[in-house]
Amino acid sequence: MMTFNSSSIVVRMGLLSSSSPEAVDSMTLFVLLLCACIIIGHLLQKSKWMTESVVALIIGLVTGIIILLTTRGRSSRLLVFDEELFFIYLLPPIIFNAGFQVKKKQFFRNFLAIILYGVLGSLISFIIVSLGSLQLFKKLDIDLPSLGDYFALGAVFSATDSVCTLQVLNQEETPLLYSLVFGEGVVNDATSVVLFNAIQKLDLSHITLENITQFIGNFFYLFLTSTLLGVAVGLFSAYLIKKLYFGRHSTDREIALMILMAYFSYMFSELLDLSGILTVFFCGIVMSHYTWHNVTENSKITSRHTFAILSLISEIFIFLYVGMDALDIEKWRFASNSPWTLFGTSAILLCLVLLGRAAFVFPLSFIANLFRKSRNDKIAFKQQVVIWWAGLMRGAVSIALAYNKFTSSGHTKLQGNAIMITSTIIVVLLTNVVGGLLTKPLIRFLLDPHKHVGSTMSSGLFSAKTLPLLTNGQHSESNIDTGNPLDSSQVVHHFWRNFDDTFMRPVFGGRGFVPVIPASTTEDTLH
Amino acid sequence: MMTFNSSSIVVRMGLLSSSSPEAVDSMTLFVLLLCACIIIGHLLQKSKWMTESVVALIIGLVTGIIILLTTRGRSSRLLVFDEELFFIYLLPPIIFNAGFQVKKKQFFRNFLAIILYGVLGSLISFIIVSLGSLQLFKKLDIDLPSLGDYFALGAVFSATDSVCTLQVLNQEETPLLYSLVFGEGVVNDATSVVLFNAIQKLDLSHITLENITQFIGNFFYLFLTSTLLGVAVGLFSAYLIKKLYFGRHSTDREIALMILMAYFSYMFSELLDLSGILTVFFCGIVMSHYTWHNVTENSKITSRHTFAILSLISEIFIFLYVGMDALDIEKWRFASNSPWTLFGTSAILLCLVLLGRAAFVFPLSFIANLFRKSRNDKIAFKQQVVIWWAGLMRGAVSIALAYNKFTSSGHTKLQGNAIMITSTIIVVLLTNVVGGLLTKPLIRFLLDPHKHVGSTMSSGLFSAKTLPLLTNGQHSESNIDTGNPLDSSQVVHHFWRNFDDTFMRPVFGGRGFVPVIPASTTEDTLH
Repeated sequence: MMTFNSSSIVVRMGLLSSSSPEAVDSMTLFVLLLCACIIIGHLLQKSKWMTESVVALIIGLVTGIIILLTTRGRSSRLLVFDEELFFIYLLPPIIFNAGFQVKKKQFFRNFLAIILYGVLGSLISFIIVSLGSLQLFKKLDIDLPSLGDYFALGAVFSATDSVCTLQVLNQEETPLLYSLVFGEGVVNDATSVVLFNAIQKLDLSHITLENITQFIGNFFYLFLTSTLLGVAVGLFSAYLIKKLYFGRHSTDREIALMILMAYFSYMFSELLDLSGILTVFFCGIVMSHYTWHNVTENSKITSRHTFAILSLISEIFIFLYVGMDALDIEKWRFASNSPWTLFGTSAILLCLVLLGRAAFVFPLSFIANLFRKSRNDKIAFKQQVVIWWAGLMRGAVSIALAYNKFTSSGHTKLQGNAIMITSTIIVVLLTNVVGGLLTKPLIRFLLDPHKHVGSTMSSGLFSAKTLPLLTNGQHSESNIDTGNPLDSSQVVHHFWRNFDDTFMRPVFGGRGFVPVIPASTTEDTLH
Repeated sequence: MMTFNSSSIVVRMGLLSSSSPEAVDSMTLFVLLLCACIIIGHLLQKSKWMTESVVALIIGLVTGIIILLTTRGRSSRLLVFDEELFFIYLLPPIIFNAGFQVKKKQFFRNFLAIILYGVLGSLISFIIVSLGSLQLFKKLDIDLPSLGDYFALGAVFSATDSVCTLQVLNQEETPLLYSLVFGEGVVNDATSVVLFNAIQKLDLSHITLENITQFIGNFFYLFLTSTLLGVAVGLFSAYLIKKLYFGRHSTDREIALMILMAYFSYMFSELLDLSGILTVFFCGIVMSHYTWHNVTENSKITSRHTFAILSLISEIFIFLYVGMDALDIEKWRFASNSPWTLFGTSAILLCLVLLGRAAFVFPLSFIANLFRKSRNDKIAFKQQVVIWWAGLMRGAVSIALAYNKFTSSGHTKLQGNAIMITSTIIVVLLTNVVGGLLTKPLIRFLLDPHKHVGSTMSSGLFSAKTLPLLTNGQHSESNIDTGNPLDSSQVVHHFWRNFDDTFMRPVFGGRGFVPVIPASTTEDTLH
């Protein structure tokens, strides 16, 4: 659904020959900075306040300042951001890894709430930010050229940053919150990208009811087909690896194939104008449910870490870049002619983001709680506050969408556009730094771990059993009927388990359906 | 030493906005073809004749033909080759992985022979190909514009393909040959790139003795500094990981840091105009000797495979690309005006490659044997034949250098240049297909496994001990004095071992100097 409407890969890989002598310097320095982020992020890890992304942002900012000073204000950037670089190379590994490592039971157990937040919530937030900015910007004498620009802003700012969420919430400590906020983040990334593209295609001068129904129908069609494509590619990979490699100790080929097929699912989805993010996310889930169990013990360890490593490097890359890019002198020069306007827009957008999120988290939580029978199982108000707060962070997706809309190939042309870009960067920086620094203390404050144990235990009904997903546990999963009254999600899960055991696992493999292949030390790593 | 003289990364990552609608299609198809190569390569693995690179080449050729037919002869390529793509992204992981997985004892034990083949041998081959083509091309009425072009050809065709070597020789079955041919391949890649660049800078109209001594001095200076840089970065990574992460179960960060630092060593070496290939190779060796022992058990398994996976994908990418590129219609159109000239040049170059390699393998083996005391230890004539044959393959380095010299940004302008490119492709294809198909049978024919066991045992004096390098063996390595008369390499090794144990390992870690950290199933993979 997102369109690759600038620099083609063919061109990027080849035909260019205009050279910049600084290319290798920049690349080397950038790699060095990536190393620095990992090292410093590790050193500051004990503080529990700093996340790796905040470290990367700050290092990026500092580097930007140094470059600004050494080039005497000519440039702050080592590399020029291209939203395609982000969408083609950096985002897929992050989202795939998220799908691969997500606790599936938690995710599916909270599926209804996730979809409510991620789809309906994003729509609410989108409408509030769009209409709010349309009303409030007039007071600042900002007039964006078209109505579409305001809707674009709405889409830009309804994209929660799922990457940051991973860093501030802990899957073990707060499984329910992690599952909800992160799950929402993924679905909502997809929602905003789909919205963003749909808006750009929509003829906004003739909004009719028919248009809107068509739009909504189209939206769900995209959502469903994207998911199905991811599931299909994931299942194919499971079948292939089960048939081809099973027990052959060819770790390298197995994992290379998993990486390539996951990437293929993303690209193919984009090719079909679907949402690559959703596709690769579900591909990751299916691969961890089936494919992962069809490989050797060494491959299991390796794949789990390899995907995490690729994702980690991509994340740090993004934040480092955003930090450096925040100081891009060109945009600030445009925007600095009217510092108060810039301050005003940023403040307005920030407030709208806060409001837009509050406007859906609390009502939708209420709705979600209606479907949760057990009292322990309901999403408590304090938890709702954390969900509201943790999802405030805006990140790379917002930046990429804003660049896509308000610049043409990395350069801002109109002053209005420059202000939109700089405001976006300010909101992203603020929400990340503040959010990154305060989320962990907030969780500790609101959800006292001692009280919290109970809620973890109840909300994480399956967490003890889902833990072995990525470890080597041998627990049986089928003893689900513990005498408790089943709520609807448990019934669905029960039927799914039967279906999975009877039809799916015999064909595609999965835990318990393939013998455990021991790690082999004589495994031929070279061939 | 190699210069990135076309398309800058800055430009590639950003400023472009001219779009080609086929970009995503091409990328998707390319990823799909990569998958196909792995799958088909696996299916044909049993045949023992086909290597993955030959499969990738053939798939590339077939795809090229299909694209030619569907576009009605307009294009055969999905992506346009840029030698930078190769040098910046694809080559480093391959060479690093080679250094990381190489059996260090074998390598250092045969160091003299490797340097003889790789440096002196490449020089001999370079001179023969250069002067031979200078003489023989005249008879075909081909007149390259400058003397430098002939020397460039010499450099292009003295680059043995170390990647193919990995595929046809087996480290376990023929450790001596593997070590010699592969070691030579790496050193000689570096030699040819250094030669290639030096030649382009050299003023060929005034060749004086002073020039030549300076050239040789410069060459060895580059060789030494490149190696030292790689060692330094490797040692730094070992020290850092030992100090920072030791025992903390942060596999993802550890390995991300290793990958980034290895890549940094390559880029930094290029930045200093050294040979990145040599640097990253030695960085890999040092990392496997020190850094690898400072990480957890999970990290050991993961790193070993992750590096191999990145290398595998890069290799297949290269061969697939070369296969597709071989059919590039533009070059053939130029060259097809004179098919016999093309046939002639290809035949001449092929003969010169055969001759140039024979001219150094046999004499230099004789010299190397002078330093090998034990009779079992000498390189037998049959083994020399295999070394000669296995090193005939020309690969991606040759292609990249040829493109660099004879095209400007992917397009061939002069007919002479087009013929040089097509001839290079023909030689690469022929040597790969023939070499890939015949090397394994040749080894079986010449070195009968039953007879061969003896030679393996003797030449691989340390092979039983080096095996645990990449496994989890607990063997002690210090029992080197087995009463045999020590030859020079053993004496050197003995001193090195003492030095390593006394000074290096206590600081940088390494086997036996860090307690074995057990794999942890509770290891936090996300953080």
